[in-house]
Amino acid sequence: MILTVTLNTALDITYRVPALVPHASHRVDEVAERPGGKGLNVARVLAALGHETVVTGFAGGPSGEVLRARLAALAPVDELVPIAGATRRTIAVVDAVSGDTTQLNEPGPLVSPAEWDAFVATYGRLLDGAEAVALCGSLPPGLPVGAYAQLVRQARTAKVPVLLDTSGEPLRRGIAARPDLVKPNADELAQLTGSREPLRAARDARRRGAHTVVASLGAQGMLAASPDGLWQAAPPAAVRGNPTGAGDSAVAGLLSGLVEGLDWPGRLTRAVALSAATVLAPAAGEFDSGAYEKMLGSVRVTEHAR
Amino acid sequence: MILTVTLNTALDITYRVPALVPHASHRVDEVAERPGGKGLNVARVLAALGHETVVTGFAGGPSGEVLRARLAALAPVDELVPIAGATRRTIAVVDAVSGDTTQLNEPGPLVSPAEWDAFVATYGRLLDGAEAVALCGSLPPGLPVGAYAQLVRQARTAKVPVLLDTSGEPLRRGIAARPDLVKPNADELAQLTGSREPLRAARDARRRGAHTVVASLGAQGMLAASPDGLWQAAPPAAVRGNPTGAGDSAVAGLLSGLVEGLDWPGRLTRAVALSAATVLAPAAGEFDSGAYEKMLGSVRVTEHAR
Repeated sequence: MILTVTLNTALDITYRVPALVPHASHRVDEVAERPGGKGLNVARVLAALGHETVVTGFAGGPSGEVLRARLAALAPVDELVPIAGATRRTIAVVDAVSGDTTQLNEPGPLVSPAEWDAFVATYGRLLDGAEAVALCGSLPPGLPVGAYAQLVRQARTAKVPVLLDTSGEPLRRGIAARPDLVKPNADELAQLTGSREPLRAARDARRRGAHTVVASLGAQGMLAASPDGLWQAAPPAAVRGNPTGAGDSAVAGLLSGLVEGLDWPGRLTRAVALSAATVLAPAAGEFDSGAYEKMLGSVRVTEHAR
Repeated sequence: MILTVTLNTALDITYRVPALVPHASHRVDEVAERPGGKGLNVARVLAALGHETVVTGFAGGPSGEVLRARLAALAPVDELVPIAGATRRTIAVVDAVSGDTTQLNEPGPLVSPAEWDAFVATYGRLLDGAEAVALCGSLPPGLPVGAYAQLVRQARTAKVPVLLDTSGEPLRRGIAARPDLVKPNADELAQLTGSREPLRAARDARRRGAHTVVASLGAQGMLAASPDGLWQAAPPAAVRGNPTGAGDSAVAGLLSGLVEGLDWPGRLTRAVALSAATVLAPAAGEFDSGAYEKMLGSVRVTEHAR
């Protein structure tokens, strides 16, 4: 079983309007709701790849109830921990004509120390049966900034490979607890290391404690800096579409490749192909399985000198 | 008891952001939720004026549950009829700097014929104890376009004075059923009659079936065309602020004045003062009771020749 953690889950709402005009009134033509937050997105892709997947994190309030009801219809097993606060909503307002999206993200709920303790206990229990764990996304208010560092240490003690995908201070603290894998994008990596040169920055991130760093570089594909070597994987051509969820699909690719025992070129190929197939899919955060299969054969992997 | 009907209730959500920028991502600084829809707004003002008030209409789904939970903390008595569909949400995105508002309104839930029948039965029971009834706002999908006409006839049969505040075809059909009072704004009146000249248009609306027409004319105040005469009431000066809910406060003024036996100048004075005090209040749809008391003394009423 693969475990994904989403401490700041979200109910993702999409509104379709003809075109968003500031300070005007709009009738929404179409409303869609789905469970969101990075770890939930990762879990959906893992389940689609045929992996038994469990999601944990927090959910509460009316929006949390809707999220769990929607999650019940999907393959990942729901082990979310209830909280008194309400799960945040995110609203994506999509212009029907241009496809451009305006995003409104509510702040997360305040999580109490007792709720955090309940989560840590659940997490410990779930680690027991996990082949790998992914820690994904931002921290809701109330949690210690070192929350991910604590969860990384807990996974390492349980000997479960742990991937960390977050940003800012939680990433900086988390990386010092020596996770097996971090997956920053170019901006997150630059924020962490102060360098915009991916190779130099990835090496720096390894020195800070990450066993392996996989940097997602948009159209340039992904760069892995591991103890075994340095690889870069890129799609055959730039793909155009909606990049929402592409990073989460990449995490699912890396994690599934890890538990299936693929080597780094194999894991990167899968991550890049899934990421590109997500950009190509019409619905945000879904991936196009036909495009994925085709892309697998055309991703190019290059090994760099160490 | 005064009854208000809101067939298309809404959960009104307000997001405060620094400034809305199309196609950008925004962190929402502040989230507020309140029960909405015109009849619910009218009921809140009536209750604040000291009138026993009952609200009916439809509520359903998770948003309907939140609406009813919030309503439970307020004075109006909740007699909403449950439906399978979800109560619509409206989102007002307020720019913190300018105060300008961008509105996103979800479509209403689909109401089934059986749910409509259940409502009509509830409405009939509530009319029994009502001194007056207000029928407010748009119709959700699934209801017959003549729904308000049917509710007007039912009130007339029960000998309960009935005010209709809607627009478009539901207003056109409803007015033909001879309501005691309609309260169109200038646009609604022009749409109904084809005339932008308020006096001519109000007279036309009376010929179409309304016993009395009270037109709300923004800064020009309100014009009443009744069997007893023609009056216009205006605030002492144009008031600046947020006009959301000003029309609903005017309905509450007219309705409370009616059940208290005020004459037309008295009812109009109250409606104009409440409306102005709503524009002046910092929160949308609330009224400033100090401003209301002060305004009562300074509204000017003019009688027109018939």
